[in-house]
Amino acid sequence: MAKNIKVTIWNEFRHEKSNEAVMKLYPDGMHAVIAKFLTEAGGIDTCTATLDEPEHGLTEEVLNNTDVLIWWGHVAHGEVADEIVTRVQQRVLAGMGLIVLHSGHFSKIFKRMLGTNCSLLWREIAEKERLWNLEPGHPITEGIGDYIELPNAEMYGERFDIPTPDKLIFVSWFEGGEVFRSGCCWERGHGRIFYFRPGHETYPIFFNKDIQKVIANSVRWANPRIIKDTSPGVHIKVPLEDVQEKDIDFGTAGVEQN
Amino acid sequence: MAKNIKVTIWNEFRHEKSNEAVMKLYPDGMHAVIAKFLTEAGGIDTCTATLDEPEHGLTEEVLNNTDVLIWWGHVAHGEVADEIVTRVQQRVLAGMGLIVLHSGHFSKIFKRMLGTNCSLLWREIAEKERLWNLEPGHPITEGIGDYIELPNAEMYGERFDIPTPDKLIFVSWFEGGEVFRSGCCWERGHGRIFYFRPGHETYPIFFNKDIQKVIANSVRWANPRIIKDTSPGVHIKVPLEDVQEKDIDFGTAGVEQN
Amino acid sequence: MAKNIKVTIWNEFRHEKSNEAVMKLYPDGMHAVIAKFLTEAGGIDTCTATLDEPEHGLTEEVLNNTDVLIWWGHVAHGEVADEIVTRVQQRVLAGMGLIVLHSGHFSKIFKRMLGTNCSLLWREIAEKERLWNLEPGHPITEGIGDYIELPNAEMYGERFDIPTPDKLIFVSWFEGGEVFRSGCCWERGHGRIFYFRPGHETYPIFFNKDIQKVIANSVRWANPRIIKDTSPGVHIKVPLEDVQEKDIDFGTAGVEQN
Amino acid sequence: MAKNIKVTIWNEFRHEKSNEAVMKLYPDGMHAVIAKFLTEAGGIDTCTATLDEPEHGLTEEVLNNTDVLIWWGHVAHGEVADEIVTRVQQRVLAGMGLIVLHSGHFSKIFKRMLGTNCSLLWREIAEKERLWNLEPGHPITEGIGDYIELPNAEMYGERFDIPTPDKLIFVSWFEGGEVFRSGCCWERGHGRIFYFRPGHETYPIFFNKDIQKVIANSVRWANPRIIKDTSPGVHIKVPLEDVQEKDIDFGTAGVEQN
Repeated sequence: MAKNIKVTIWNEFRHEKSNEAVMKLYPDGMHAVIAKFLTEAGGIDTCTATLDEPEHGLTEEVLNNTDVLIWWGHVAHGEVADEIVTRVQQRVLAGMGLIVLHSGHFSKIFKRMLGTNCSLLWREIAEKERLWNLEPGHPITEGIGDYIELPNAEMYGERFDIPTPDKLIFVSWFEGGEVFRSGCCWERGHGRIFYFRPGHETYPIFFNKDIQKVIANSVRWANPRIIKDTSPGVHIKVPLEDVQEKDIDFGTAGVEQN
Repeated sequence: MAKNIKVTIWNEFRHEKSNEAVMKLYPDGMHAVIAKFLTEAGGIDTCTATLDEPEHGLTEEVLNNTDVLIWWGHVAHGEVADEIVTRVQQRVLAGMGLIVLHSGHFSKIFKRMLGTNCSLLWREIAEKERLWNLEPGHPITEGIGDYIELPNAEMYGERFDIPTPDKLIFVSWFEGGEVFRSGCCWERGHGRIFYFRPGHETYPIFFNKDIQKVIANSVRWANPRIIKDTSPGVHIKVPLEDVQEKDIDFGTAGVEQN
Repeated sequence: MAKNIKVTIWNEFRHEKSNEAVMKLYPDGMHAVIAKFLTEAGGIDTCTATLDEPEHGLTEEVLNNTDVLIWWGHVAHGEVADEIVTRVQQRVLAGMGLIVLHSGHFSKIFKRMLGTNCSLLWREIAEKERLWNLEPGHPITEGIGDYIELPNAEMYGERFDIPTPDKLIFVSWFEGGEVFRSGCCWERGHGRIFYFRPGHETYPIFFNKDIQKVIANSVRWANPRIIKDTSPGVHIKVPLEDVQEKDIDFGTAGVEQN
Repeated sequence: MAKNIKVTIWNEFRHEKSNEAVMKLYPDGMHAVIAKFLTEAGGIDTCTATLDEPEHGLTEEVLNNTDVLIWWGHVAHGEVADEIVTRVQQRVLAGMGLIVLHSGHFSKIFKRMLGTNCSLLWREIAEKERLWNLEPGHPITEGIGDYIELPNAEMYGERFDIPTPDKLIFVSWFEGGEVFRSGCCWERGHGRIFYFRPGHETYPIFFNKDIQKVIANSVRWANPRIIKDTSPGVHIKVPLEDVQEKDIDFGTAGVEQN
């Protein structure tokens, strides 16, 4: 029998303590709701971590026991310590999956993994969003129809400053006139990364069954097959083939120098 | 008439002062030799910058006057200040081209742009290398035949820990038994990045006419069409279409919370 | 001085003879209007070819004198002879650029180059389209702002059955609720291919200055650097390295067979 | 419990009847050996089909019962009927996996799916090949080390005329001095395609345990999640949003025409 996937859900967990609307919607934090539906999806073991815990809850031990890390942050990206970001980055390059949700596009870890600014347009008038499914044969869209419709969403618009995704899964249409690459896959090192746009704190996005299905699918897709540190270079002194060390042929190089 | 491309050649410039063999080959530094052949290639204005200058020679003013930056470093990657790396990164995302040579694969700026460890295998026995030209129709290989042969090279071998290149231009064959993705293109923000493997300090690589041609071609390829800061998000308060702010439909979300 | 780019504009040229609205808008055919604005753009020499000419106007001689071929077709895709499609395909693989417009998505040549069905959703109510510019630094979007707005367009919607584009340039927003990958780049053989969605026969699309600019830009982008037949395999009898023909080591293979 | 994957192994099956060396190595045909090791790998049901059967053994019924098709051909590519190629292509676009082996690079179906000539260099002196594993975290390389070494192989060298692979899995080093993209993934329609270079008829390649493992892995990777015809366009007459059919704004287009 396949082993359960170990998922750590990281949440900034600030809005839920300070904003009444968010508090009402997510009294135990968005991470609690995500953990609940992932557990119910089956084959997944969850734990959670939040910004204000020591080491933001992301100790070496926690990461070494994490197959896939989910990330939600918004107002406190700058409070995430750089050494924790480096630790997470190295774990992703070694193979851990990383699912970045919504406003996590501006998180340090997402920008670190991609190397770009991840900036975008935005507007908040609770407008309609329709996420078109470009890849119905992809594991992330299993069970999803032609599109997912959200009655109320914050708008994110292009240009989204990201590297061209390895695979573009969803493109969003917004009532107000914009489009957005809403579901994007990349591979970095041995790890898989999925960015998924929905997830605004004041709308009941994480209660939507299709959104839940996509996140559960993405966890299965990002589950690593190997975990292996990619940081060290390797010095192979003896060649595989029978080749002796050579004298350097300087040709006319030296002449041009004199 | 097209404007000249403004190229800044950055060199760590340490080997040339401490190693006799390098000193003999590149008495004024590798950057001087690169500047010379780029100037002779035509349409290119060069200046140089080195690690030990203030701000490593990469002031805001210098970068604002640079279309394409060439980077060579090896033993002192760690001495490059993080704030300068950030400055260069932002200029690349805004549109500046970046050409990273040889041991620059482990430079902070290259790892920052790509998000990976950029590790590889290596061996130094002056063995033969043959760079196969996979894209004879690409601007970077203009004037290059089926392959470039170097009689003496340091070996770099796979797995090279990089994101899948947007375009793979050269793959190297090494006498000792390895292969390597030796010419790789990426786009990040509005900037173009080219990694080119050859360039070892003790072999006369930068005197090779084909190597010179590839570097000059890559400068022309990476010359930006726009320069535009990609860091700020943009808040579009008023929608393009006639849409009013909506009430949020909470559906059964609240119920499930109680 | 750079040589002019030789562009052949191929048009099915049937709607213009049978539909009064199209006749009024494009009395000399869409190809005449495209030829006019490309000529005015500068650096481009144009000629035209249409379905009902012998060999559809695409003789060996015409193709051998074409740097970039533009293709518009709709109702008569099936009438294009397979041997002409093969001839065009081989010329593209050898290096000729190919720009496919609008309903050309279902042309034999486009499907042949991509290997997919190129199917899509469609609706014709003259709705508004907004093409968002995802790559403002790309040569194809030179001079184009954040988006191009068309007051009246036929809708094309996802899923568009194409291989993942090498570069996705435009994504369209439609008033009726759909999105579409409207500007897509691929490379095949030594040739570059650009698909551009706009171009409906009954709307004045080809009179729009931004549309004209994109098509002229795409011609410059697709202009080949080499022309070289990619069809023959090459038998290299003598190895580059000093290697003798070997005896085959059958190991236990034969044993397992008996 | 997961259903077994239904694999059809298609073999030209000509060499085995005419060439004594091949006859001795593969008395029942290469397809028999491939079927045997796939069956032993577990979770896979196999059947076979060959060129000289009616419809080449690839009837509608056979294809409708195939999840993944493996293809080996060499001397008789031209004898494969075009209508069967079209049938296979449509099944791949609908979701069926396709694994193309060795000399299958010149098969009609491979060229049809990719749109290119798939030409390459070649030499047959039973030289050594080393396939470097570029993606140790990919499902296709599960259980494979840093490289696979084959003591005797036919050489295939670059430039291989293929579209840039979505993922490049193996790059080969050859004793005689060449390199080759030996394991390449693409997606077309809803189907996944894997090209794997090894498989020469006179060397005991298909008895190599690593080669067997890669082929079994690739079958699992290419197993479809959906099967859905991608050929028809879909006419959506009624928009999703409340938009009425519009009058066309001809602007100055008409004026320019008169």
